Amino acid sequence: MTKIKHALPVTRAEDFAQWYQAVIAEAELAEESGVRGCMVIKPWGYGIWERIQKLMDERIKDAGVENCYFPLFIPLSFFAKEAEHVDGFAKEMAVVTHHRLIADGEGGLIPDPEAKLEEPLVVRPTSETVIGAAMARWIQSWRDLPMLTNQWANVVRWEMRTRMFLRTSEFLWQEGHTAHADEADAMVETLRALEMYRSFSEDVLAMPVVAGAKPENERFPGAVDTYSIEAMMQDGKALQAGTSHYLGTTFSTAAGIRYQDKQGQQALCHTTSWGVSTRLIGGVIMTHGDDDGLQTPPQVAPHQVVILPMLRDNDGDEALLAYCEGIRAALAVQTVYGERVRVLLDKRPGKATAKRWAWVKKGVPLVLEIGGRDAENGQVSVLRRDRLWRDDGKVDFQGQDRDAFLSAATAEIVAYGNALHAAATAWRDARIQRGITDLAGLTAYFADEREQSALAPGWVELGWSRPTGAALDKVVEQLKALKLTIRNTPMDAAKPAGMCPFTGEPAVETILVARAY
Amino acid sequence: MTKIKHALPVTRAEDFAQWYQAVIAEAELAEESGVRGCMVIKPWGYGIWERIQKLMDERIKDAGVENCYFPLFIPLSFFAKEAEHVDGFAKEMAVVTHHRLIADGEGGLIPDPEAKLEEPLVVRPTSETVIGAAMARWIQSWRDLPMLTNQWANVVRWEMRTRMFLRTSEFLWQEGHTAHADEADAMVETLRALEMYRSFSEDVLAMPVVAGAKPENERFPGAVDTYSIEAMMQDGKALQAGTSHYLGTTFSTAAGIRYQDKQGQQALCHTTSWGVSTRLIGGVIMTHGDDDGLQTPPQVAPHQVVILPMLRDNDGDEALLAYCEGIRAALAVQTVYGERVRVLLDKRPGKATAKRWAWVKKGVPLVLEIGGRDAENGQVSVLRRDRLWRDDGKVDFQGQDRDAFLSAATAEIVAYGNALHAAATAWRDARIQRGITDLAGLTAYFADEREQSALAPGWVELGWSRPTGAALDKVVEQLKALKLTIRNTPMDAAKPAGMCPFTGEPAVETILVARAY
Repeated sequence: MTKIKHALPVTRAEDFAQWYQAVIAEAELAEESGVRGCMVIKPWGYGIWERIQKLMDERIKDAGVENCYFPLFIPLSFFAKEAEHVDGFAKEMAVVTHHRLIADGEGGLIPDPEAKLEEPLVVRPTSETVIGAAMARWIQSWRDLPMLTNQWANVVRWEMRTRMFLRTSEFLWQEGHTAHADEADAMVETLRALEMYRSFSEDVLAMPVVAGAKPENERFPGAVDTYSIEAMMQDGKALQAGTSHYLGTTFSTAAGIRYQDKQGQQALCHTTSWGVSTRLIGGVIMTHGDDDGLQTPPQVAPHQVVILPMLRDNDGDEALLAYCEGIRAALAVQTVYGERVRVLLDKRPGKATAKRWAWVKKGVPLVLEIGGRDAENGQVSVLRRDRLWRDDGKVDFQGQDRDAFLSAATAEIVAYGNALHAAATAWRDARIQRGITDLAGLTAYFADEREQSALAPGWVELGWSRPTGAALDKVVEQLKALKLTIRNTPMDAAKPAGMCPFTGEPAVETILVARAY
Repeated sequence: MTKIKHALPVTRAEDFAQWYQAVIAEAELAEESGVRGCMVIKPWGYGIWERIQKLMDERIKDAGVENCYFPLFIPLSFFAKEAEHVDGFAKEMAVVTHHRLIADGEGGLIPDPEAKLEEPLVVRPTSETVIGAAMARWIQSWRDLPMLTNQWANVVRWEMRTRMFLRTSEFLWQEGHTAHADEADAMVETLRALEMYRSFSEDVLAMPVVAGAKPENERFPGAVDTYSIEAMMQDGKALQAGTSHYLGTTFSTAAGIRYQDKQGQQALCHTTSWGVSTRLIGGVIMTHGDDDGLQTPPQVAPHQVVILPMLRDNDGDEALLAYCEGIRAALAVQTVYGERVRVLLDKRPGKATAKRWAWVKKGVPLVLEIGGRDAENGQVSVLRRDRLWRDDGKVDFQGQDRDAFLSAATAEIVAYGNALHAAATAWRDARIQRGITDLAGLTAYFADEREQSALAPGWVELGWSRPTGAALDKVVEQLKALKLTIRNTPMDAAKPAGMCPFTGEPAVETILVARAY
């Protein structure tokens, strides 16, 4: 097999972390902004986020949840209240202390000492407290329940080490917050959101995930139960791609979210919260990216088909453009995944080859290159993003009859999406290790130091005795020494047989153990 | 005529400012958040904003503009640079100085003195500077131009006196930022955005506006030209509802946005910016609201039709609900304004009358009340929001045959929208005063102290000599004494005859003078 000259300057096998940055740069997804830990999301990256927002928002609304918008700023006192009742309260937050800038007399600006806020304001790291206060105002009676709210917003968590899309100081997300009459109803909502995230990841992002319950030590502070979806990246690490929390009455107690029940008695609401963020884009990159850039899942691709006319700056260009426009128009009225096909005729100046690689690196499902002769002969030349290379190292363009292509195009887009999902699922399933029964086995499995490589070990599924308290702390320490964490207990996991490798007691629950982002 | 008992606790004529707050409260659009100057946008208000976003975003994308996302935080140094070249630099901004909270030892929290930022960060009041820096990185050659970007974001301007939707410390908006090879191309974009806002306001929001050029003293700091759309509120005041700026090379000089032209020479880009915000909702309220609440324009109404079954908690309810569901389903597959009809069957517990008034106050175009007898007889009872009252003071429900209603429903929704637009336009046009030729006349026209009333004077259109410098300052002072400002020079205004009432020189330009929000 001839050596393939890939489009990225670094491959996954060479350096996975560098490769990840290269995909983001070369696919023009985002870039560093110059503001610490904050990124600029560029049109292709933001276009993917807009698609995620649109399709997730439909699912959220279909569940009867209503969107609201709550303030960016949260008074310090709200956190003081939360800090009292929540261990592990996160304190790394952006704090606004002044409301005016003045000249410092040396050509610069400084916060005006005269304009110091009486009470500092915190830039929201999450909106539990401020939404809890609103719910306490809005909920009076059982008739107001369930109250199902969501917001799409930016949030800020001061992060010491940032990585684009995965961990940034500012990120975009949705946060669902709901209040219910009792635990049973709140738990239905918690699991509904979890299942929404699971099916969205699988069906829309073509990203296989394991939905499950977090162990006690990995719960959101204040939560009674935390559930997550976990995706396996191509370096074998786990990415927590979404969470759903049953908060019991922790937050309703703190915020005073009460209702009058049918018997006229005051009762505390049971609340939930659930969220996904721009981190999903990081998951898509590390699930579907290859050494030629991103492979964008078709339902979130801003363009599903890009048509590149091979212009020659001569008399033939007009006929060629008309031919390409005909193909564009014929695709644009077709429907795939219940929406119109998103097709772009890229007429910008520039060499067709450079433009081809720009779109390949962005992961457009189908790229069409069309020259004058194709136009004369009613042909198109089609490149499917997941079938880029021939065995001889050449780019695998398929010459097709125009009409045949047009009648098969939407099926081809779906086939591409299904192929991404199948490949990622097969890849992941082959890397979930079972049958490890002791710590030595676990240590040996993860001893391989290829963690920067696509050939790294994956996850271990094993049974444990679900220790609590100090015994759990000890397990967490043992895992930490191996750079491991417990990801979750899969929803459909069978009861394990055998013994817990950590405690030596009988195993009662199945867990996934992995390195993680 | 019998006295009508209106749904709001206060009428426009009694107290316009109080009425405005009452609409917001009773229509459940928004509420104070407890955070100074920030509001909570509730589902109905946020639903209107989502509709505005969707329909405006389509127009923005159709113009070839690409959405991005830029950081919330802007380093202080960016403003120092801007402060140098822009007179009138706005300094009231939220300043982040610390990145951690710690316990103060007395049960509270304080910013950690150890976690003081080396360079404070400003919460974006607008993103010209940070987007300018990005454009300077992204633009190399004439091939990269025009660069057309937009972002939907929250911004913060510390406001001393706030009013919901009109002037809040945090608000939601879109900001378009574009870079062009020359003034002509930038001016085309500036006017394209202005026309987009004008037609959006008229066609989507049913809100008549005057598009025009701002006088020199009302320009955005740093802009060469500022254009606005101005809407007349029902108290006669003007609301600036959107702006579009031609920025010349002011910002490209500051940020170094240069390109290599076709001759290989370096040249500065010409930039524009344009924006509308949640303020539009304030404009909709004060354009279309009446003494019974909001009248929501149909294209931005989250529900265009609400069906209220008159449940009796008896055996008949099942058949009634089935009948209502049939109507809902028959409406939901119909198309109006190019989209599916948005229809809600409101099955929540509670009295039908209370629910009716809740939806009337929210301004749903058509409310259907359906009782058991209607269901038996194939009837519906329809209330059109702009025809609420009969002469005898009763609510003007129209009994209709079900099928006749269904076949006319979308036409009725459009007729309602057209009626809102026609009424607001006629109202405004009757309140633009012409023929005032001297300051005494202007003073007399606005002497009427009914400014809190719906009967207030409107705008004055007159010719002026377009003074500059000190002469302009004097005019601005004269107007200020009358609480007036120059709104704009309408795009289609004829050259005036006669003399300027301020300078006594020949008038050269037509302007609108008004009290304003």
